[in-house]
Amino acid sequence: MTLKLGVIGAGRIGKIHAENLARRIPETTVLAVADIDMMAARNLAESLSIPLATVNPSEVITLPDLDAVVICSATETHTPLIIEAARAGKHIFCEKPIDLDLQRIDEALAAVEQAGVKLQVGFNRRYDANFCQIRDVIQAGRIGEPHIVQITSRDPAPPPLDYVRASGGIFLDMTIHDFDMARFLVDSPVTEVYAAGSVLIDPAIGDADDFDTAVTTLRYASGAICVINNSRQAVYGYDQTVEVLGSKGSVRTANNTAHRAVVTDPEGEHGPIPLYFFLERYTDAYIAEMRDFVDTLIHDRMPSVSGADGRAPVVIGLAATKSAREGRPVKLSEIE
Amino acid sequence: MTLKLGVIGAGRIGKIHAENLARRIPETTVLAVADIDMMAARNLAESLSIPLATVNPSEVITLPDLDAVVICSATETHTPLIIEAARAGKHIFCEKPIDLDLQRIDEALAAVEQAGVKLQVGFNRRYDANFCQIRDVIQAGRIGEPHIVQITSRDPAPPPLDYVRASGGIFLDMTIHDFDMARFLVDSPVTEVYAAGSVLIDPAIGDADDFDTAVTTLRYASGAICVINNSRQAVYGYDQTVEVLGSKGSVRTANNTAHRAVVTDPEGEHGPIPLYFFLERYTDAYIAEMRDFVDTLIHDRMPSVSGADGRAPVVIGLAATKSAREGRPVKLSEIE
Amino acid sequence: MTLKLGVIGAGRIGKIHAENLARRIPETTVLAVADIDMMAARNLAESLSIPLATVNPSEVITLPDLDAVVICSATETHTPLIIEAARAGKHIFCEKPIDLDLQRIDEALAAVEQAGVKLQVGFNRRYDANFCQIRDVIQAGRIGEPHIVQITSRDPAPPPLDYVRASGGIFLDMTIHDFDMARFLVDSPVTEVYAAGSVLIDPAIGDADDFDTAVTTLRYASGAICVINNSRQAVYGYDQTVEVLGSKGSVRTANNTAHRAVVTDPEGEHGPIPLYFFLERYTDAYIAEMRDFVDTLIHDRMPSVSGADGRAPVVIGLAATKSAREGRPVKLSEIE
Amino acid sequence: MTLKLGVIGAGRIGKIHAENLARRIPETTVLAVADIDMMAARNLAESLSIPLATVNPSEVITLPDLDAVVICSATETHTPLIIEAARAGKHIFCEKPIDLDLQRIDEALAAVEQAGVKLQVGFNRRYDANFCQIRDVIQAGRIGEPHIVQITSRDPAPPPLDYVRASGGIFLDMTIHDFDMARFLVDSPVTEVYAAGSVLIDPAIGDADDFDTAVTTLRYASGAICVINNSRQAVYGYDQTVEVLGSKGSVRTANNTAHRAVVTDPEGEHGPIPLYFFLERYTDAYIAEMRDFVDTLIHDRMPSVSGADGRAPVVIGLAATKSAREGRPVKLSEIE
Repeated sequence: MTLKLGVIGAGRIGKIHAENLARRIPETTVLAVADIDMMAARNLAESLSIPLATVNPSEVITLPDLDAVVICSATETHTPLIIEAARAGKHIFCEKPIDLDLQRIDEALAAVEQAGVKLQVGFNRRYDANFCQIRDVIQAGRIGEPHIVQITSRDPAPPPLDYVRASGGIFLDMTIHDFDMARFLVDSPVTEVYAAGSVLIDPAIGDADDFDTAVTTLRYASGAICVINNSRQAVYGYDQTVEVLGSKGSVRTANNTAHRAVVTDPEGEHGPIPLYFFLERYTDAYIAEMRDFVDTLIHDRMPSVSGADGRAPVVIGLAATKSAREGRPVKLSEIE
Repeated sequence: MTLKLGVIGAGRIGKIHAENLARRIPETTVLAVADIDMMAARNLAESLSIPLATVNPSEVITLPDLDAVVICSATETHTPLIIEAARAGKHIFCEKPIDLDLQRIDEALAAVEQAGVKLQVGFNRRYDANFCQIRDVIQAGRIGEPHIVQITSRDPAPPPLDYVRASGGIFLDMTIHDFDMARFLVDSPVTEVYAAGSVLIDPAIGDADDFDTAVTTLRYASGAICVINNSRQAVYGYDQTVEVLGSKGSVRTANNTAHRAVVTDPEGEHGPIPLYFFLERYTDAYIAEMRDFVDTLIHDRMPSVSGADGRAPVVIGLAATKSAREGRPVKLSEIE
Repeated sequence: MTLKLGVIGAGRIGKIHAENLARRIPETTVLAVADIDMMAARNLAESLSIPLATVNPSEVITLPDLDAVVICSATETHTPLIIEAARAGKHIFCEKPIDLDLQRIDEALAAVEQAGVKLQVGFNRRYDANFCQIRDVIQAGRIGEPHIVQITSRDPAPPPLDYVRASGGIFLDMTIHDFDMARFLVDSPVTEVYAAGSVLIDPAIGDADDFDTAVTTLRYASGAICVINNSRQAVYGYDQTVEVLGSKGSVRTANNTAHRAVVTDPEGEHGPIPLYFFLERYTDAYIAEMRDFVDTLIHDRMPSVSGADGRAPVVIGLAATKSAREGRPVKLSEIE
Repeated sequence: MTLKLGVIGAGRIGKIHAENLARRIPETTVLAVADIDMMAARNLAESLSIPLATVNPSEVITLPDLDAVVICSATETHTPLIIEAARAGKHIFCEKPIDLDLQRIDEALAAVEQAGVKLQVGFNRRYDANFCQIRDVIQAGRIGEPHIVQITSRDPAPPPLDYVRASGGIFLDMTIHDFDMARFLVDSPVTEVYAAGSVLIDPAIGDADDFDTAVTTLRYASGAICVINNSRQAVYGYDQTVEVLGSKGSVRTANNTAHRAVVTDPEGEHGPIPLYFFLERYTDAYIAEMRDFVDTLIHDRMPSVSGADGRAPVVIGLAATKSAREGRPVKLSEIE
C-alpha cells in the first residue's frame, strides 16, 4: 500500500516533512506541493521529484487520488485549509498551532469530526527520544505521582521582529510547545496559569507588546505544579530539558549534543554545547512524527496527537497571555 | 588572640556550631553553653570540655570575658536574646530566621545598631562551595546579566507535624533559605512574589494550614525572574541545586554525593544519590560560616550576612505566604 | 552525475552499505548485488529496487557501466575480488580487514596501484562523531603532544564459535579496529606491541586457541604509549571510548546512548546504557563513510582511508597475536 | 582511654598525620615529634601543643607511656625505626613504602612479628570514598568476577629532580600506590608485570635513569588483567580514577572537584578540574586512615593494611622496574 500525500507550505518545516515523506518513509508518495511562493513550491518539488507544484492549495486538496494533506502554511490559513481538506475527505496533518482563535479552532475540529477524517497536530517534541523516555518512566510508575514539572525551553536567538509581531506572542508561539509538553507528561487537566514576562533581550520585542523572557506556572487538577522558563536567547544554543519530581523519585533529561567529547585543560573540563536549534535537535523527532501519522492512516487508528490536543495548549496560551498582561493567575475556565 | 564565645541552644544546629568553634577554629574558645534542657547543655559541654553549662542564657550573655554569643535557640527567643546580648555589648551570630515578625526584627536590629555590636545571620548556604562558585561566576560577569534564576530546594522527608505547626509555614521555614539565595546571587531587589502551594505528600500538613509542595516566582527590579521549587519530600535525598541563565551564558550546579562511583550493568548506569540532608550537605559550609564570623570579629569588618540580609527574606516569606493564601502575586511594598 | 555501484556480499554489513547508497546518498545508484546465498542477494535487491541479483561477483564487477564495487563478502575473498575489480578498472570500497595475510594484501594493493583505481578500506569508526572530535581536538593542538592513548573497546556478547574460529583471532578481528584508531589519533608510527590475553568469558573460545579478554600496549616512535582493553562481553552493551592525555590537557569521549534521561530514586541515579552494538552505535558513521567514498570518487581525490591504512593494522594485529602467544613484546619490524 | 602517640618526621605527610591525630581524633594525644630538622620538629610541636620536640627518634620511641609511633621520615629510615619501635613494644604506623629492599622489609616484618606489635602501612588511597565504593561494589558481587582493571594515576607536576633521583624510580615511588590499588580491588595474586616507560615530559628525568610516563600491565592468577597508566604531569591536576569491568557489569569513579558548578557559554560547557594534588584529594582519606589505625589499637584487631600489604607492592614495583629496563614481562617469582 502506498499513501499519496500533498504538502501545503514549502517553508522551513514544509521542506522537512516533504523530504521525510519522500525519502525516509517508504510507504508514501508526495503527489503535490503548494506554496504562495511559486519558486519555493517548484524548487521543493524538483528536489524531491514531486510531480505537481502549485500556488493553489485547493489544487492539492482536490487531487482525486490524494489520501492526506500536510499543512505547513501560515497559521491563519490552517483553519480554512483544515475545513476544505476535511470536506474533501482527506486526512490531515496540521502544524501547531491550529489557530490562535478558539472559535475558529472549534469550527475546524467540527469539520474534521463531521467528515470523519483523521487530524494529527504537529507537536513534534512528543516524538523526541528524551521526552518519550520521560513520559515512559512516568507512565510506568517509576517516579510515582508527579508533583513538580520543570520545563526549560529556550531558543538560541530571537526570531525576526516581523515574525514576533505576527506570532500571537511568546506564550502562543513558543511556550505553546511547553504547554503541550506539560499535558503530554502529566495525565491531569491544567486548571490555572500564572505567567510572569519580562523584556531583557531586545527592547523592540517589548515595543511589539511581547516578552522575550518568561516564567509560567501551571496548576494541574491533581495539585501538581508545572513551571516553565522561557528565553528567546540562550546564547549557548537551544536548551530543551525537563525534570519531573514524583512521589517515588525524579526523572530529568539533558540536552543532545553533536558529540560527547570533553577536553580537560588547566582551565577546566570543556564539553559540547546543545545542538543549535529545533532543526538539529528534532531531526529524528520529525521523522518519527510523520512515521506515526502514516502508521495512523495505514492502520486506521486514532491519531496520537488529536485535534483536542491541538486545542488545549491554545487555551493555556491565551490564559498565560492574559495572566502576564493583567498580573494575576488566570483560570482556564475564564478562557473557555 | 583568642575569642571567647558562648553558645545558646544545644540542639542540632547548636551542637554543630559549638563543635566547629571548639575543634576546628583554633582562635576561639567556647566558655559556656545554655539550653532549656539542662542535660542537653551538660552533655554538649562535657563532650567539648566547655567549662559552663546552664539553663539560663543570661548567664552566658553576662559572662564578663565573653566576646560573642551564638544564638541557636528557638526562633521566638531570637529577638529578646539579640537585644539582651547587644545591650551587654556582645557580638552576635543568630540562626535564621531572626524572627517571623517584622516589628520584632526591627527592634532587634535597632538594638544591635545602638550597641554598635556586630550581628551575623545564619544563612549557611552562602558558604557552600557550589553556590559560592555560582555567585563568583556571576560576579565575574561570565554569564552577563542574570535573566532567569532557578532554585531547586527539596528536603528528603517532612519534619514532624509539631515542627510544621510552629514553623511559620513552608515559606518562612524552608523557602526562606531560597529567598536568601535569590538575593545572594542577583544584585537587584526582589519586588514581587507569586507562590503556588499544594499538599501532595501528607494531608496532615494541609490540616496544619501549610503546604508541602510549592513553586514560587520572584521578580527582581531588574526584570530578572527567579523561580523556586520546593518539596518537603524528595525520596532520593536533599536536592539543592541552582541554575542561572544570563545574557552571555548560564551556570548551574549539581548536588554533592558521598562518592563519585558509577556502576553500569544491563539495566543502566547507576550513580549515587545526593547527600542525605543539610547536616551532610552543609558540613563544610557550617565551618566556613563560623570561620567567617570569627574573622569578622578578629578583623573588625562588616558581617558578610548582615541584619538587613536576615530581615529581607522574612519580608519575601511573608509576601509568599500571603500570595499562596490569596492566590495572587503580592508586592513586597504590601508587606513593609 | 550519478555514480553506479555494485555491492558484493549481502550480509549484515553489505545490507547497511547497500541501503545507505540506495536511500541516503542521492548521487548513487546500486546496479547489482552479489552473494553466495542467492536468496540473500535477491531479497536485498528487491527491498532496494536493485536491478540485478547474482551469486557471481564477477557478474557485478564486469557490468560495463559500473563505477565502483563495495566488497562486503568474507575476508578470504577480499584479495581476489580487489584484484579482479582493479583489473576491471573499477574503484573499490573494501571492508576491513583487507586480508589476514600480508603477502596477499601486498598483491591486492599492487593491483590497485597498477590499475590506478581508488581503494578505500572500511574503518567505519573514523567517521564516528565522537572519535572525529577527539582527532580534531588533537590535530588542533588543544592537548599538545599526545603522551598516553587509552582505548576501551568491548563487545556486548561474543560472536558464534564458528565465527571465532575463522576470525583470525581477537587481535585481527576485533582489536584491528582499535589499532586503526591508534593510528588515526596519533601521527607517529607504531613500532612495538605487547598483548596480554585471557579467556575469562567462554572456555570454548580458549579451546579455539583465541582470547576473549585482552590488554594490548602499543609504542609509537614518538615515545607515546597506547593501551587498548578489549572484552568480548561487556554485559551492559557496546563500550567504545577513547581518552588521550597530552602535554597540554586531555580529551575523552563517552558512549552514545538511546536517550539522555536519568531517573533518581532512593537507590541512586539511573541513566541509560550504551547503544547495543556497532549497528546502533555506528549508524551515522556508516552513512558518513559511504558519503566520503562517493565524494572521493566524485571529486577525484585521494581516499581518506587508503590501502596502506588497511594494511598497517594487520601488521599490528599479527604482531599482537605473536606477542600474546609468545608472552613478549614484538617489534613491528619482526612482522614486515 | 587515650592513646599516646609519637610522630617521627615533621615533613609534609608527618604534619598531616600529627594534625589529624591532635585535632580530629579525640581518643589520641601526641606526646612527641621528631625530625632531623629541629626547627621543623619544634614548629609542628608548637602549633599543635605537643610537649616534646626532638631530633632524635629514639627519644620518641622510648617514651615510657607511648603506645605507638607514626613513622613519616625518609624511606631509608623506615626499616631501622620499625625494628627499634617493635623491640620497644610500640605499635607502628609506617608510611609507604616500608623499604625499597625486600630483605630489609623482611627484617622489619620479622621484628614486628617477634615483638607481637601491630604494623599498619600508609596506603592512604584505600581510605578514599571513591575507591572504597569501588571495592564495596566488587566485594558485593555487583559486577561479578573482575576481568579488566584500569587505573589512571597522574600527578599534576613532576617532583624536584633530587626527589626523583632518590625515589627508587617511578614504579617504586608513584606506581606503588597503584599496585596497592590493584591488590586492594581484586582478591587474586598478581603474578606477572609488563611495564612500558617513556620520557616525554622532562629529559632530565630520563638522565636520572627514570621515566615520567608509563603504562604497566599486571596479570592476576585469576586471569584478570590490570592496566595502569601514569604520568608525572597531567597539566589539569591530579587524575586518580579507576574502572573495573566484571562479568556482570562495570564500575568506575570520576575525580573529585572543588565544586560542581558548570558554566555553559557559546564555546561549550565548562566544569571544574580535579582537586590539585594528594593533599587536596586525600584530605579525608588521611583522617580515615589514622582513624582506622587508632581503632585497630583500641579494639586490638588486625591492621587493615598489614606488613604483607606493604611488602607486596614493592615486589611488583621491583618487577615493573626490571620489566621496563629489560623490555619484557617479568614474573613476580623472579623477584622473590
